[in-house]
Amino acid sequence: MDRTDALGSIKDMAARCSNWGRWGEDDVLGTLNLITAGHRVQAAGLVSTGEVISLAQAFDTNGPQNGWRRRTNPVHTMTDTGTEAEFGDQGFPHGFGGADDVIAMPLQCSTQWDGLGHIFDHGRAWNGRRAGSVVTSEGDQVTGIETAADQIVGRGVLLDVGRHFQPELGAEHPELPDGFAITPEHLDAVAAAQGVEVRDGDILLVRTGQYGRTRRDGWGHYAGGPAPGLSFTTAPWLHERDIAAVATDTWGFEVRPNEFDDAFQPLHQIVIPNMGLYIGEMWNLEALGQRCAELNRYDFLLSAPPLPVTGAVGSPVNPVAIL
Amino acid sequence: MDRTDALGSIKDMAARCSNWGRWGEDDVLGTLNLITAGHRVQAAGLVSTGEVISLAQAFDTNGPQNGWRRRTNPVHTMTDTGTEAEFGDQGFPHGFGGADDVIAMPLQCSTQWDGLGHIFDHGRAWNGRRAGSVVTSEGDQVTGIETAADQIVGRGVLLDVGRHFQPELGAEHPELPDGFAITPEHLDAVAAAQGVEVRDGDILLVRTGQYGRTRRDGWGHYAGGPAPGLSFTTAPWLHERDIAAVATDTWGFEVRPNEFDDAFQPLHQIVIPNMGLYIGEMWNLEALGQRCAELNRYDFLLSAPPLPVTGAVGSPVNPVAIL
Amino acid sequence: MDRTDALGSIKDMAARCSNWGRWGEDDVLGTLNLITAGHRVQAAGLVSTGEVISLAQAFDTNGPQNGWRRRTNPVHTMTDTGTEAEFGDQGFPHGFGGADDVIAMPLQCSTQWDGLGHIFDHGRAWNGRRAGSVVTSEGDQVTGIETAADQIVGRGVLLDVGRHFQPELGAEHPELPDGFAITPEHLDAVAAAQGVEVRDGDILLVRTGQYGRTRRDGWGHYAGGPAPGLSFTTAPWLHERDIAAVATDTWGFEVRPNEFDDAFQPLHQIVIPNMGLYIGEMWNLEALGQRCAELNRYDFLLSAPPLPVTGAVGSPVNPVAIL
Amino acid sequence: MDRTDALGSIKDMAARCSNWGRWGEDDVLGTLNLITAGHRVQAAGLVSTGEVISLAQAFDTNGPQNGWRRRTNPVHTMTDTGTEAEFGDQGFPHGFGGADDVIAMPLQCSTQWDGLGHIFDHGRAWNGRRAGSVVTSEGDQVTGIETAADQIVGRGVLLDVGRHFQPELGAEHPELPDGFAITPEHLDAVAAAQGVEVRDGDILLVRTGQYGRTRRDGWGHYAGGPAPGLSFTTAPWLHERDIAAVATDTWGFEVRPNEFDDAFQPLHQIVIPNMGLYIGEMWNLEALGQRCAELNRYDFLLSAPPLPVTGAVGSPVNPVAIL
Repeated sequence: MDRTDALGSIKDMAARCSNWGRWGEDDVLGTLNLITAGHRVQAAGLVSTGEVISLAQAFDTNGPQNGWRRRTNPVHTMTDTGTEAEFGDQGFPHGFGGADDVIAMPLQCSTQWDGLGHIFDHGRAWNGRRAGSVVTSEGDQVTGIETAADQIVGRGVLLDVGRHFQPELGAEHPELPDGFAITPEHLDAVAAAQGVEVRDGDILLVRTGQYGRTRRDGWGHYAGGPAPGLSFTTAPWLHERDIAAVATDTWGFEVRPNEFDDAFQPLHQIVIPNMGLYIGEMWNLEALGQRCAELNRYDFLLSAPPLPVTGAVGSPVNPVAIL
Repeated sequence: MDRTDALGSIKDMAARCSNWGRWGEDDVLGTLNLITAGHRVQAAGLVSTGEVISLAQAFDTNGPQNGWRRRTNPVHTMTDTGTEAEFGDQGFPHGFGGADDVIAMPLQCSTQWDGLGHIFDHGRAWNGRRAGSVVTSEGDQVTGIETAADQIVGRGVLLDVGRHFQPELGAEHPELPDGFAITPEHLDAVAAAQGVEVRDGDILLVRTGQYGRTRRDGWGHYAGGPAPGLSFTTAPWLHERDIAAVATDTWGFEVRPNEFDDAFQPLHQIVIPNMGLYIGEMWNLEALGQRCAELNRYDFLLSAPPLPVTGAVGSPVNPVAIL
Repeated sequence: MDRTDALGSIKDMAARCSNWGRWGEDDVLGTLNLITAGHRVQAAGLVSTGEVISLAQAFDTNGPQNGWRRRTNPVHTMTDTGTEAEFGDQGFPHGFGGADDVIAMPLQCSTQWDGLGHIFDHGRAWNGRRAGSVVTSEGDQVTGIETAADQIVGRGVLLDVGRHFQPELGAEHPELPDGFAITPEHLDAVAAAQGVEVRDGDILLVRTGQYGRTRRDGWGHYAGGPAPGLSFTTAPWLHERDIAAVATDTWGFEVRPNEFDDAFQPLHQIVIPNMGLYIGEMWNLEALGQRCAELNRYDFLLSAPPLPVTGAVGSPVNPVAIL
Repeated sequence: MDRTDALGSIKDMAARCSNWGRWGEDDVLGTLNLITAGHRVQAAGLVSTGEVISLAQAFDTNGPQNGWRRRTNPVHTMTDTGTEAEFGDQGFPHGFGGADDVIAMPLQCSTQWDGLGHIFDHGRAWNGRRAGSVVTSEGDQVTGIETAADQIVGRGVLLDVGRHFQPELGAEHPELPDGFAITPEHLDAVAAAQGVEVRDGDILLVRTGQYGRTRRDGWGHYAGGPAPGLSFTTAPWLHERDIAAVATDTWGFEVRPNEFDDAFQPLHQIVIPNMGLYIGEMWNLEALGQRCAELNRYDFLLSAPPLPVTGAVGSPVNPVAIL
C-alpha cells in the first residue's frame, strides 16, 4: 500500500479481494455463505462448560455517540410505569398493572452488525450492484439485514490482540494503544500463541481492549477518534482464510487514524462492498477475553443473529458466546 | 377458576404459583435461574443438522400494531442512502459511499420478550417489590431486561398445538381458532403425541398457528383481538414443571377473550410478577413447526438473548433455533 | 384539461403558471415574497375584537395517519411525570419536581405547511433547481422550511365553501361531499357572497368542512381517501391573483380522487415546484368558519410561522387567526 | 432570601406569590388569563413597520443539548428525497416526485414554552392540584399545552438587559456575564432607560445576550451550565405586575448557579406551580434586540402559540415579533 495513494491502493485491493459473482449474481449474503451446517454442528460440539457470555455493550443514553451524521445514543422512554401501577389509575381491572416502553436509536449506535448495504465503492454495492438500486430512502431493497436473520450462528474465534501484546508493549492493561494497526503478522502471532486455528467459515472476534479502556477512563473519542484496529493490509488475510464475519471492540473496526494520508475507512470499502463481509463493531469483548485467558481456550459457539429490521443496513445485536 | 370472580381466582392462583423469595430477595432473574450450565451443554448436544431457523417476525411499518397505548409499528428511516452514494456528494474521499439508518419503535412492537418489570399484581413487581420502586419514568431500575442479556440460551421445546389438533378440529390449516384456550391437558397430549418430554429449565414454545393465519389473511385483529392461547389454568402446569421461559406466536400469549367475565390478561398477572416467568410474544413459529414435523423432532438449542436496553421492560429479539 | 392526459395537462399548466426566476435565481421563498410589510400593517389593522382562534388540529396518537409512506401519528412520551414528583424520588432538592417529554412524528402528520422542497416536477424543484441538489438525505439544503421562519404573517382570508354551498347542496351540515372539486367559479362565488375581496399577498384559507365531518363521524379515510378540495383548474386562479399561501382543512388540499384518470396530486405538482406556493394542509377551520359567519367578516390577521426545523420539507404549525 | 435556606425561602416566596384559586379551581391557564382581548387589540395597534422577526433558534442536531435527563437535540430524517425523485423510481405517475420527513425530539430541546405541568412544588401542580393526578405517563391530563393553543398572542415587551448594562460592565459585547443575577432593580432600570412601560398582561422578553455569545463562541455549557438570568427575587416583581408570560434567551430562565447554596431552579418552583406563569426558554432575541435598539422602540405584537401536542408539558415554538 502507498500511504499517499488511497485511491490507487483501494482499487488494487478491491480487485484482489473481490468476491463478486462467487455465490451467483443474485447473492445477498456474501461471506455468510461460508458458514455451513457442518460448521455449526462442529461449533455446537465445542460447548463444554455451558457458560453464556454476552458480547453486547449497553444500549442507553450514556453511550459513545456524539451525534456525528445523526448518530445519537438511544433514547428509551416509558409509556407506562410501575409508579403509576402502584399509585395511579391505569384503567385495568383486578389489580393488574403494567409498564411499557419505546426507543428511538440509530441502528448502529451500540453493539452492531454492518449490513452489506452499509458501504459502497464508487457507487457500487455488494456483488457489483448499483448503490442507487439497492439502498434508497425506503431502505435496503436487496441486501437488507433481515436476509441474515437465520445465518450468523457458528464457530467464534477470539484473537485477543490486546492481551497478547501487553508484555511486549509494556502496557499497564491488556489493551492496544490508539492508532495501533493490527497486521496479518500480528493476527498470526496471536493465533499461534493462543493455540487456536482460524478456519474458513469462522466468525472472528478481534479484541483490542479499547472498550475496556473506556470503562475505566470514559468514552473520550471512542466514536470516531483514534483507535487500534485492523490494518488495511489485513484484507487479503481475511479474504484468503474465508472468514465469514469479523467483529472488534472498537467503533470503527479498522485502525484510526486510517493508514492513508487522506482517507476514510478504506478497509470498509474493500471488505463490505467487494468481499461481502459482515463486520461487527462496538462489541464488548472484555468478559470473553478474560474468560478465554482463564480457560486457555479461544473457540466457542457464537450466536449473533441480527434483528430483522426490514431494509436495514445495520442492526443492533446481543451476540452470545456459548462456551 | 370461577368465571365470575377474576379477582379471587387471581389471588388464589398467585398464592399457589408464587416464586417470591425462591432465589433470594435480591433476585432479578426469576425462572431464568432454572437454566443451568448443564442444561445448556445438553441442549448444545441436540444440534445435529446444523440448521438455523429464525423465530422472528419482521420489524417494519407493515406490522400488527394499531397504536393501542402508543404501541405503533417501527418507523425505520435512512440518514444516508445508496442513491446519494451513487449520484450525490456525500463528502467522502476515494469513492467511499455509505448508508445509515435510525429506528423508532416500541420495544414490544414485534417479536419480543416481556421483561419482569412489564406486569404488576396489585402494585407489586417480581419478588414482591413495590412496583413504584422498580419501574419509574427512567425505566426498570432493578429487573431491566439487560439483566437477562447472558441468560436465555438453552433447550427449546416446541409444542405444536395448532398442528396436533388440526385433524380433531377438522381445520383446513394447522391452526387453532381464535378463542381456543389451551389447557394443561392439551399441552400434555401434544407432548405425548410428539414424543417429547418437557423438562425443568426448558424454554417452551407453543405454536397456535395464528401467526400463520395472518400471513394468509392479513393482520386483522392480531394485536389485541381474539386469539388462541394458554388458558389461565396452565399457570400451575408451568409452575410445577419449572419452565424457564415460554413463548407463543400470538400477540398476547394467553387466550383472548380472557376466560373471566371482566378481565385483562390474568395469566400475565400470575406468571410475570408472581412466578417471575419470562414470556415471549409474537414469535414466528411457522418454519420451525413445519421443520419439526418433517424431522419428527421437537427439541433443539434455542438462543434468544434480549437486546440489553438499559432499564427496558421488554425487548425485541431474533430468537434462533439451532437444530 | 384533458382527463385522459395528466402528463400533457400538467406540462401545459406548469408552463402557464411558472414563477421560475420571478424573484431571482437564488430565491428560496416563492410566493411568500408577495407578503409585504405594507400588507402586514394593513392586516394588523383588521384586528378589532382581539379574539384568537387556533387553526391547528391536535397532535397526538389519535390522529388521521395510517402509516402510508411511514406517515404515522405522533408518539409523545414522558421522561418524567407528576406521579413520580408526588410519590417517587426524582433526586431534586427542596421539594422541586418536574415532568418532561419527547415526541417522534412525521413533520406532516397533522396541521402543517408543505415546504418548497416537498414536491418536484420531473426532477425539478422550486425555481428550476435539480431536485437531487436540493433535498438530500440530510434534508433540504436550499429551501428548508427554516427560510420561512419570519415570513408567514399577513392578511388571512377565509372562503367557507362548505358553508356557502350547503343550501344548494341540500346538505345536513356545512360541508362539501368527498370528491367535490372546487373550481375558480366556486371560489369567486363564495368571495362575492361573503363580500370579501381576495388580494395579492393574501394567505387564503379554503374550508371544505371535511375535517368537521371527521369530528362527527371519525377519521375514516381522511388521510389519502376521497375528499373535497381544489380543482386542478384553480392553478391559474391562484397564480393570477398572486396568492401568497393557501391552506385547506383536508389531508391533501386538492380534490380526491384527482381529476385525471391516472394521477397523483397533480395540482401539487404545479403549485409547489412551478409556482413556489406554500400549501397548508389539515388545518382546523371549524371554529373560524363558525365565527366568521357570526361576525359576517372573513379577513383577519393570520400568524402561521413554521417551526424552523433545519432542512425540513414540511412543518407542524399552530396557525392563529387574530380577529 | 436566605442563601443557606432554599427550602424556607421557597416556602415563603410561594405563599407570597401564589395565584392558586385566583381564576377558579378549574383554571388551566394561569397567568395567560391576564391577556385580554382588549390587550390584543392594543398590541395589534403597535404594528407600524410590518417587519416580522422570528425569535426561534434552529431545531437541529447541532443544538445545545447534551443528553441530560434524555434531553437530546432533534433528529430529523428524510423518508423520501429529491435525489430519488431525480434519479430513482418513487412509483408516482406523470413526473411527480416528493420528499418527506420525520423528527424525534424532546419538546424542550430548543426554543420552547414550559407548560404549567412542567414543574411541581412539593408534589403540587398549578392551582394546588396533586402532581400525580395531573401529569402521568400519558401526559398532562389537565393543563396540557394544547390548552394554551389560542392564548399566547399579545403585547410583547423586550427588556434588553445585556445591551443596557454593556457600558456599566465594560463588556465587549452587549451581553451579561454568566452568573449575573437580574434583579427587580435591574429590570426597572432597563425599562426606564428604554422608555417602555411594563404592564399587566404583557409577555415579557428578557435578553441577556448569552445566546448571542454561543453564536460567537460555541454552545459551551449553554444547556445547564452557568448563565445570566432572573434572580429568585424577581418573583414578586413578576407577580405584582401581572406579567402574563416571560421568556429569556437562556437555557434555564433563572440565573445559574442558582442563588442558594444547594438548589435547583428555585424560581421555576415559584412561578410555574404557584403563580401559574408560562416561561419561555432558549429564545433567540438577537435580531430583535438589535432592531429594537435601532428603532428605539421596545414593544410590539407578539404571536407565540405553542404547538398543541396533546398532554405535553412543554412545546417547541417559533415566536414572532411583529413590529
